[in-house]
Amino acid sequence: MGKFGILTSGGDCPGLNAVIRGAVLKGETVYGQEFVGFLDGWRGLIEGDVMPLDRSSVRGLAREGGTILGTSRIGPYSEPRGGAENIKKVLDELGIDGVIAIGGEGTASASKRLFEDGINIVGVPKTIDNDLDATDYTFGFDTAVEIATEAIDRLRTTGNSHKRCMVLEVMGRHAGWIALYSGIAGGAHAILIPEQPESLNQICAWVTSVKNRGRSPMVVVAEGFTLPEMDQAHSTKGVDGFNRPRLGGIAEVLAPLIEERTGIETRSTVLGHIQRGGSPTGFDRVLATRLGMAVTDLVADKHWGHMVALRGTAIVRVDFGEALANHKTVPQDQYQEIRVIFG
Amino acid sequence: MGKFGILTSGGDCPGLNAVIRGAVLKGETVYGQEFVGFLDGWRGLIEGDVMPLDRSSVRGLAREGGTILGTSRIGPYSEPRGGAENIKKVLDELGIDGVIAIGGEGTASASKRLFEDGINIVGVPKTIDNDLDATDYTFGFDTAVEIATEAIDRLRTTGNSHKRCMVLEVMGRHAGWIALYSGIAGGAHAILIPEQPESLNQICAWVTSVKNRGRSPMVVVAEGFTLPEMDQAHSTKGVDGFNRPRLGGIAEVLAPLIEERTGIETRSTVLGHIQRGGSPTGFDRVLATRLGMAVTDLVADKHWGHMVALRGTAIVRVDFGEALANHKTVPQDQYQEIRVIFG
Amino acid sequence: MGKFGILTSGGDCPGLNAVIRGAVLKGETVYGQEFVGFLDGWRGLIEGDVMPLDRSSVRGLAREGGTILGTSRIGPYSEPRGGAENIKKVLDELGIDGVIAIGGEGTASASKRLFEDGINIVGVPKTIDNDLDATDYTFGFDTAVEIATEAIDRLRTTGNSHKRCMVLEVMGRHAGWIALYSGIAGGAHAILIPEQPESLNQICAWVTSVKNRGRSPMVVVAEGFTLPEMDQAHSTKGVDGFNRPRLGGIAEVLAPLIEERTGIETRSTVLGHIQRGGSPTGFDRVLATRLGMAVTDLVADKHWGHMVALRGTAIVRVDFGEALANHKTVPQDQYQEIRVIFG
Amino acid sequence: MGKFGILTSGGDCPGLNAVIRGAVLKGETVYGQEFVGFLDGWRGLIEGDVMPLDRSSVRGLAREGGTILGTSRIGPYSEPRGGAENIKKVLDELGIDGVIAIGGEGTASASKRLFEDGINIVGVPKTIDNDLDATDYTFGFDTAVEIATEAIDRLRTTGNSHKRCMVLEVMGRHAGWIALYSGIAGGAHAILIPEQPESLNQICAWVTSVKNRGRSPMVVVAEGFTLPEMDQAHSTKGVDGFNRPRLGGIAEVLAPLIEERTGIETRSTVLGHIQRGGSPTGFDRVLATRLGMAVTDLVADKHWGHMVALRGTAIVRVDFGEALANHKTVPQDQYQEIRVIFG
Repeated sequence: MGKFGILTSGGDCPGLNAVIRGAVLKGETVYGQEFVGFLDGWRGLIEGDVMPLDRSSVRGLAREGGTILGTSRIGPYSEPRGGAENIKKVLDELGIDGVIAIGGEGTASASKRLFEDGINIVGVPKTIDNDLDATDYTFGFDTAVEIATEAIDRLRTTGNSHKRCMVLEVMGRHAGWIALYSGIAGGAHAILIPEQPESLNQICAWVTSVKNRGRSPMVVVAEGFTLPEMDQAHSTKGVDGFNRPRLGGIAEVLAPLIEERTGIETRSTVLGHIQRGGSPTGFDRVLATRLGMAVTDLVADKHWGHMVALRGTAIVRVDFGEALANHKTVPQDQYQEIRVIFG
Repeated sequence: MGKFGILTSGGDCPGLNAVIRGAVLKGETVYGQEFVGFLDGWRGLIEGDVMPLDRSSVRGLAREGGTILGTSRIGPYSEPRGGAENIKKVLDELGIDGVIAIGGEGTASASKRLFEDGINIVGVPKTIDNDLDATDYTFGFDTAVEIATEAIDRLRTTGNSHKRCMVLEVMGRHAGWIALYSGIAGGAHAILIPEQPESLNQICAWVTSVKNRGRSPMVVVAEGFTLPEMDQAHSTKGVDGFNRPRLGGIAEVLAPLIEERTGIETRSTVLGHIQRGGSPTGFDRVLATRLGMAVTDLVADKHWGHMVALRGTAIVRVDFGEALANHKTVPQDQYQEIRVIFG
Repeated sequence: MGKFGILTSGGDCPGLNAVIRGAVLKGETVYGQEFVGFLDGWRGLIEGDVMPLDRSSVRGLAREGGTILGTSRIGPYSEPRGGAENIKKVLDELGIDGVIAIGGEGTASASKRLFEDGINIVGVPKTIDNDLDATDYTFGFDTAVEIATEAIDRLRTTGNSHKRCMVLEVMGRHAGWIALYSGIAGGAHAILIPEQPESLNQICAWVTSVKNRGRSPMVVVAEGFTLPEMDQAHSTKGVDGFNRPRLGGIAEVLAPLIEERTGIETRSTVLGHIQRGGSPTGFDRVLATRLGMAVTDLVADKHWGHMVALRGTAIVRVDFGEALANHKTVPQDQYQEIRVIFG
Repeated sequence: MGKFGILTSGGDCPGLNAVIRGAVLKGETVYGQEFVGFLDGWRGLIEGDVMPLDRSSVRGLAREGGTILGTSRIGPYSEPRGGAENIKKVLDELGIDGVIAIGGEGTASASKRLFEDGINIVGVPKTIDNDLDATDYTFGFDTAVEIATEAIDRLRTTGNSHKRCMVLEVMGRHAGWIALYSGIAGGAHAILIPEQPESLNQICAWVTSVKNRGRSPMVVVAEGFTLPEMDQAHSTKGVDGFNRPRLGGIAEVLAPLIEERTGIETRSTVLGHIQRGGSPTGFDRVLATRLGMAVTDLVADKHWGHMVALRGTAIVRVDFGEALANHKTVPQDQYQEIRVIFG
């Protein structure tokens, strides 16, 4: 019972459509809920720009990447028309009883504020970087790891044939989970993540040691990794021995530095957007569908101010405050173990 | 420190090689352990048939399906040469201090008995059906779900083009996890699992209802599902209205029955062995590598009689007895929800 | 200029939608042609059951398997409403100036007769078995080979781990191209095709020889292959040493025979429908798009009675008679070479 | 009969190993030829650095990317030890009767010179860019197209969700085949290739027009494409309205220019090395295996100075001169047609 609006906010992620589908199918069938979709994230909510969402509009969506609702980086309090008062008015006019916001940390934070300002709102966590402590895994992460792993498998054969060092840059601005997981899966020799500094000397020592064992070094680096030598000034003005400015990713900075220091021919690849688009893996489709189904329970229970999350094999409820309390980065001991074993 | 023998037993599973690699790399690097591999499961242990296992022999193994050690369905107590006394002798002669047995329920059960008979043994759980309660997921399961999901994606287009009902049979003798997960991921309309009886009437009602909504019905059935109408006698002699004996899988039984009852053209596919071979998904490579790494901690701690398992995001230790206590089947409430929503 | 109706007939095939899209995009843009789609193959033509087809209705279709027009095995002369006279009337009533029929040998043969009976009709060849002599390759074939090749890659690891012989059955009723190509690509040890008899003795000799070289035999068999020992009577009543009737595919007949004769554990997999559904390979999308584009040239030129075909890298025109003159089977010398080298 | 040396030269390419395997299996079985492999391309030949190559050393190679022989960009006439006289001496010392050189245009050109200088040499053409006129397709090209097509499929969902223009850069220094084929397969709206100038104005007109039709523009650009506005000086010093130097690929130049001119948010991806590594498609494995098999016929016939090539479905022989006579670029009419239809 009741009518609810769904929105997707922030960067797209494989599984968003599966969440929408799971919510609509369960909400309609089990609870008799009705749904509309707000277009382009918070913009649709602020402006009352909606599309109908029923069983037929979510047909076949589990396997589709992206989000049929569109997304944007606009926040709900953004000027001139945002804010809780305006949003309440929009919801009243449209006869909407509550909001389901699918998004990342920014979305959860905005949702918390809206909830405190009296809006009926629940959430579904979304971060391709898997850096939310409240949930064991976020959907989209598995797909990104799979794509990065396949890339490593491909790059390895080129590395071996040319006796080159290959450097692959994957996503991960503040947390190195994609680099860590794809690096383990792909058998990388060095895994560089934002959480753990490694000096250029150390990286070159690994590369040289691998080469000396007759193999072709494979380095996986998260986009958020920085060389300790590379302070903010350097990162735009050029780093040690490298007087061209930084335009592309960190891989494009590292590769020539490694080549220069070790004398080993080195090539970089920046995987970029292909990690976050396209059809989700089975794992992500199931996780996203389950989260979408479970969020309708929150709505039915008027459990506003909470979001759904995965713990072990169960879907649980977490309040927005708890969800935002901790950023999940790669623990130092887990990183050190991998570092020692594969280096 | 010490020398340890690894064996893989029972049906092959994507990730076995990644376990072996993880154990050898960590064991050597962190603990200075040495390894050999017993060939063809327990046979190699009984007969003392081993191959050396060091860093170079596990190179590149994370992405390789199957097991370089070979496997078989022979048990350690099998006549004439099995039994704890003989195995102790073999281990003494080869200077092996303990055994790492990677295998399913039968392997864990045999390992428990060997441990009680005084053998130093630890385990890594393996079941592609994911039906072990002690661990959240087993490696290989994710790969099987992925392959089954891709098969559903492919079959759907044929179903739609020909307005047919498509029936896909996936693995799952006693537990329907692969059917459940791939069915959710692929958007199946009926999911049939060993744990939950569904009558032919109910199945045909679903199929007809989907067809009446203008769509092509997709049925996913686990190999262990049986129609309640189909008792043991029937299953070999032929079932109601179907006087041809059962040779192939349950899908081949169901398809003509559905077609006959509903008048809707129906085709079956038995996915079979391709679900368990080939390169593991990134998820399975990481899980298997982590389990392999963790089992060397058990060995280093002389924590005999235990196996490693995944709980949430952590690798934990479980004793063989606990591991065997519960078979993990699909809970009735989880199934009922899916049944109501997607039917 | 003019209005044309497109239909897809016979078994579905990856690339049908890409043909439709290619035709509509080029026809509209270059020639100002209008299009409708006949639903479910010839049925839609006979009954005047059409859907509009314009730029927006073919959006995104290059990557979609199946056919949005539906297909069936009904012929244009089928009773009670088929036949050239009725079809002319239907075309007149709908203001349709010509027909584009996408289909296999049966479709080409029916199209030829319709053309001789005065219908403006052109064709696009479609056979997943690649057995049409008039064209170097047909779309869909490459996708089928790719899927079969991946299956062999997966089955090999299971074969090696268990030291089994694996038998894979692929499509190919009268021509063994899919078996030949996937067998070469996957490194099969025996390739069995409808065009070339091989005795059970010969097959078992290959299997044993591979096993004796320490490898696990991989047999790829086309569905249309029959053992010379297995005449029509046998194929339904049971073959030599095998008194269970033939229900499934030839692989299910062969596997137990091989196991019985050689003593090597043998498992079969029938790949079935997953070979013909789902997203086409890049190769098939390009070929299908080019054929769809080229057929609008035929229409613009009123080059009725012809179909488009691939020769080398060029798209050419062939008349229906020529197209039907020769069935393209695997040449004996090409097969013999493979047989000698990989056996 | 006889002993022959195989080398792979230039950039790696999926299918090189399949060529080696095809040659060794056929040469040994049919002709009793013996083989060795020269390591790292011409270096191995100049220095007499060889590895044995027999049936067991090529086991399983059809599906492996890269080249087990290694490769380099060194030429056979390079100082100090190159040249025909030295090579003759090396071949004599090793008892090698002829050379099989697998490589691109540079390799063919060097092979021609060696042949004219009296060396027994034959060739197998290799160019991932597919720009060799003597052969319909080269192996590796299909794999590259497949990978690029999958990338477009993934990028599209992100483009749609964010209403962005996505720019994908693929390989193709002098010929735009990969861009053309993957662009057709992926449904790109603009395809930019080295052979055909398009102004920034034209590109932006396409992008805006697609956006105005409510879709998200997809641009595929070959690495060798240059804007007419962007002369040699500009390409290193910065182009019109874009005063940052060009470090990455052309996509990274184009994206900000498109965004600036059209006001449409635009993102670039440079696919890079993942296009040329990893397991080949079934098509490439078959083509490479057939070329490898066929080159042993040339050797057996002492048909020195020739290479093998694909014409239609046949493998033919072409002399080095003929092979080098024409560079195969995308014909203007084929490009214009695509440009008009998809733009």
